Amino acid sequence: MKMKSIAVIGLGQMGSTLARLLLDAGFEVHVWNRTPGKAAALAEAGAKVAASAAEALSRAEFAVMCVHDHGAAAEIMTPNAWRALEGKALLQFTTFSPQEAAAAAETAQRHGAVYLSGAIQVAPEQMGKPDTTILLSGPRATVDRAQTVLAAFGGNIAWLGERATAAPTMDLATLSFVYGATSGFLQGAALLQQEGLDVQRYGAIVQAMSPSFGEFLQHEANVVAGGDYSISQSPLSISVDATRRIHHAMRAAGLDASLTGAIAQLLERANAAGYSGEELAAVTKVIRNQG
Amino acid sequence: MKMKSIAVIGLGQMGSTLARLLLDAGFEVHVWNRTPGKAAALAEAGAKVAASAAEALSRAEFAVMCVHDHGAAAEIMTPNAWRALEGKALLQFTTFSPQEAAAAAETAQRHGAVYLSGAIQVAPEQMGKPDTTILLSGPRATVDRAQTVLAAFGGNIAWLGERATAAPTMDLATLSFVYGATSGFLQGAALLQQEGLDVQRYGAIVQAMSPSFGEFLQHEANVVAGGDYSISQSPLSISVDATRRIHHAMRAAGLDASLTGAIAQLLERANAAGYSGEELAAVTKVIRNQG
Repeated sequence: MKMKSIAVIGLGQMGSTLARLLLDAGFEVHVWNRTPGKAAALAEAGAKVAASAAEALSRAEFAVMCVHDHGAAAEIMTPNAWRALEGKALLQFTTFSPQEAAAAAETAQRHGAVYLSGAIQVAPEQMGKPDTTILLSGPRATVDRAQTVLAAFGGNIAWLGERATAAPTMDLATLSFVYGATSGFLQGAALLQQEGLDVQRYGAIVQAMSPSFGEFLQHEANVVAGGDYSISQSPLSISVDATRRIHHAMRAAGLDASLTGAIAQLLERANAAGYSGEELAAVTKVIRNQG
Repeated sequence: MKMKSIAVIGLGQMGSTLARLLLDAGFEVHVWNRTPGKAAALAEAGAKVAASAAEALSRAEFAVMCVHDHGAAAEIMTPNAWRALEGKALLQFTTFSPQEAAAAAETAQRHGAVYLSGAIQVAPEQMGKPDTTILLSGPRATVDRAQTVLAAFGGNIAWLGERATAAPTMDLATLSFVYGATSGFLQGAALLQQEGLDVQRYGAIVQAMSPSFGEFLQHEANVVAGGDYSISQSPLSISVDATRRIHHAMRAAGLDASLTGAIAQLLERANAAGYSGEELAAVTKVIRNQG
């Protein structure tokens, strides 16, 4: 049984993009937004504008939601709205913490609905492409049933298991990489700028090293997953020296060194815990407070 | 005038690799190492083993050095050794701070020698390939004269200008990215591990996103270089929320949150300085203590 009608709740930049992708894929799309203005362009493109979230949900076979935050989502999902979802499934793209996702899954179950956690890994303009990555968790059977809907959103749907907490947790983990990398990168940019060196050239050098750096991180992930930190591609001791050096350079240049200090201290603690001859990935043991 | 004879001082893993690449490229290679044992295999391969650093330097037209650290390099480069370099050039691959590099360049000049700063961006086993990246700074004419030597080491020689400090500063900047990214990544791995989720899958997801993430960083570098932070691909406000969320999740999971705290505070300060509607790259203004 193929799904035909989909509700899209929340018509911000991402919600509108989702609705448009569904229209392009030939679905009947029922939309609702708290401030009605945003629905006009979608109505012209063929979407049916509902008068309430509950109305949109009751008319559709499957629902997708993407609003500002958990608070906004909780206000919209009144008991009435949940009742309109009985026997159906809600794919939540609003950013929820793992705890909020777990609670929402429980609420859904109480109302006879299925809850799917989603986390979009790209900007709105990168949606709907073969390599568009979307993290997903929740009942596999529902994911399978929603396959044509998901295919409209992106080509790389990563299902991470049954638990509602899985997708938001993985989302936090990838964001942890993204913000660690970006902060470290911008710190390097500030250092170069301070010294009158070419920041654009820096961007090009880092971009060029990014693919093989991704391979290195995959290797470190395998080390953590396997639990054998002794096989050494990148011994921690070298990194202790390097992070200390970065920290000193930031201070010597009169720049904010709070981030370099935190990183150098983290590695220092791993060193003190006796991991200097182990793989750099041994830092995870200190982060888990096992060191 | 093509260079024929090269001195290689320091025969650790990287120094031995450099000597071997030069032998393969047909150069006459004079080697010296503080502990003589390491020269044996190279001697068999055709290298000429000198009795002292000064001897190796006096016999060669060009010198390359790669030892443990600045202290070791300073011990080796006695006034005698410097005198052997008169009219020649030394390419220093030992990791020097920008300040140490500036001092070494001055010492070289006093002895009538030319100083080149080098920073190898790959592991020894990745040397000598078309995409092997080596950062270099110092007089352009000397870099041009040493072209055949450099070509033996790697295909991607990035010359960053005349100043001896340029290569070590860029090296610190790329390392700042590398350690920010790796720390953030390992933190994410620890979170997933704590929640019983698949760390190997995480590695694959991050590796898949690495190339386009490199493009994003290049964009941020261009924003910093251009100085116009208003053109917004990634507004700071979104990142303030995201880094706060990561920090809360780390604490909620009972994990070390020193790094997430430092990042969240950095963005918080950029927010407080009035950059919330600007590009994420505006964080550099806070790092430069202009916020």
